Amino acid sequence: MQILITGIAGFVGTNLARRFLEQGYVVYGLDNFCRGQRANLQAFDGHDRFNLYEVDLHDLEAYRNVVGRIFQSASIDEVWHLAANSDIPAGIADPNVDLRDTYLTTHNTLILMREFGIARLAFASSSAIYGDHGETAIIEDIGPLLPISNYGAMKLASEASISAAAESYLKQAYIFRFPNVIGTPATHGVILDFVRKLKTSPDDLPVLGDGSQQKSYLHVEDLIDAMLFVRDHANDKLSYFNVGPVDDGVSVRTIAETVRDQLAPDATISYGTEGRGWVGDVPRFYYDTSKLNRLGWKPTMDSRSAVELAVSEIIKQESLA
Amino acid sequence: MQILITGIAGFVGTNLARRFLEQGYVVYGLDNFCRGQRANLQAFDGHDRFNLYEVDLHDLEAYRNVVGRIFQSASIDEVWHLAANSDIPAGIADPNVDLRDTYLTTHNTLILMREFGIARLAFASSSAIYGDHGETAIIEDIGPLLPISNYGAMKLASEASISAAAESYLKQAYIFRFPNVIGTPATHGVILDFVRKLKTSPDDLPVLGDGSQQKSYLHVEDLIDAMLFVRDHANDKLSYFNVGPVDDGVSVRTIAETVRDQLAPDATISYGTEGRGWVGDVPRFYYDTSKLNRLGWKPTMDSRSAVELAVSEIIKQESLA
Repeated sequence: MQILITGIAGFVGTNLARRFLEQGYVVYGLDNFCRGQRANLQAFDGHDRFNLYEVDLHDLEAYRNVVGRIFQSASIDEVWHLAANSDIPAGIADPNVDLRDTYLTTHNTLILMREFGIARLAFASSSAIYGDHGETAIIEDIGPLLPISNYGAMKLASEASISAAAESYLKQAYIFRFPNVIGTPATHGVILDFVRKLKTSPDDLPVLGDGSQQKSYLHVEDLIDAMLFVRDHANDKLSYFNVGPVDDGVSVRTIAETVRDQLAPDATISYGTEGRGWVGDVPRFYYDTSKLNRLGWKPTMDSRSAVELAVSEIIKQESLA
Repeated sequence: MQILITGIAGFVGTNLARRFLEQGYVVYGLDNFCRGQRANLQAFDGHDRFNLYEVDLHDLEAYRNVVGRIFQSASIDEVWHLAANSDIPAGIADPNVDLRDTYLTTHNTLILMREFGIARLAFASSSAIYGDHGETAIIEDIGPLLPISNYGAMKLASEASISAAAESYLKQAYIFRFPNVIGTPATHGVILDFVRKLKTSPDDLPVLGDGSQQKSYLHVEDLIDAMLFVRDHANDKLSYFNVGPVDDGVSVRTIAETVRDQLAPDATISYGTEGRGWVGDVPRFYYDTSKLNRLGWKPTMDSRSAVELAVSEIIKQESLA
């Protein structure tokens, strides 16, 4: 199998590349190293089945040149499209960020899949497409879809374009709606924030919001297991799955306490007064993953275990940094 | 009231401009005259409350310059954003058409509304955002949203960006999910096709597909009534409504027979064998408009009456052409 991974130097891309190389696949990785870091891929340097290309995917001509170079000596069986903006507040401040990095990367990927006749697409979508449904459990077929961030809007736009492509020329597509995914190499997110804050000032951990925000977390190893399971077991032309743990999640308070306990047990945690950390942040989230469970997959870790493992991994990462 | 209408030279824009001028509003109309025709606006030439600007809305700089010129001597209370690609098959052949004309026009409209502090947006969305739900009645909150054309995908992307903007800076937004709208000036659509075919060869009317495709049709006068009613009666920050007649629609066969009866009673109608006319065409469609009815609005015409009126109007338009 020959796999093209976009956004390979990012958090999920790095872990997915490792898994595919372990499975004996040939990996073609694309990244502009704008958010993903070259250092994340050092372990694969010199690997004979690993090929890395620096390219801006929102630049169709440059993207087409790279794919054309690959097709001179090989072909691609599957595209795993992970490239996207990962900074939600940045995308709210400037909608062009998510247009360019979250949507146009998908748009161009679809154009090139048609041009080069690539059959299958796996796409990293997001729970952010759903917007705020309050206390209602979020199943895949819920409506309406009214995202509250430009990131969510452009992930939904990407799904919509993939759906239209599946009606027209795409052979098979898998849409994975990610929860909050944690692990290393961590580049952003609440755990990394807390670890860095405590390393800078070990006595005090200030938390944005009142700590009541509750979210579910999946460890990246479970995420990759889930995606490969769906790829191997779902038969629909267009499959779409919520991916996540089988629980209602943990609060920001629990995460703050876990980081404190592992890193600086004597530190004081101080909270804000708002239920939301920032515009575009959903305070509580009931993410229903029973469709994926019915297909036969279950995670090995719940949210709490995933947080505990990720906190220890991220502390290790930051100590080495 | 000072209103900016994008896509003013199109079918709906022309009729909306007439209504707003009748109500005493000041109208600022924008169009690139790529699909909308200047001739549609001749009736407003020299009207002292009508202002027309030629501009490509996907070109942000050019769009910003026009809005800046308007704001030198006036301000805008509402934007009615109608500009979009209207040729669905063209958008399937080349996804850049709907990216540019259906999505980027919305994206840039939102950027400029934020920059210039324009409070309210009315947006012409489409039943195409829903995709194919088979026999299920389509209410506004149905899921999943998996459009089967790039036009539907980019209308959904537009809605998603408006939703994110309403969470962040937009004061109020109205999303209207149009059914098939008919009337004059007709620029495309099945009635115009049939009229032109019969004028070219009056003995035979060949129909794409087997004629069983059933759709609901709203006359443009009813559509405009509905939009103004929602604007005046809906109080949510973000309102979204299916707009359409209160019936299950009429078949292509009925439309073909209506055109034949009015234009060439002795012509023979011949049908294809496929249930769908083209890729991206939904064969049957149960469009639930009860949310709009509950708000207090009902159309004056059902699908059949709307078709009969539009056929006579389009025959008249084509005879004068």
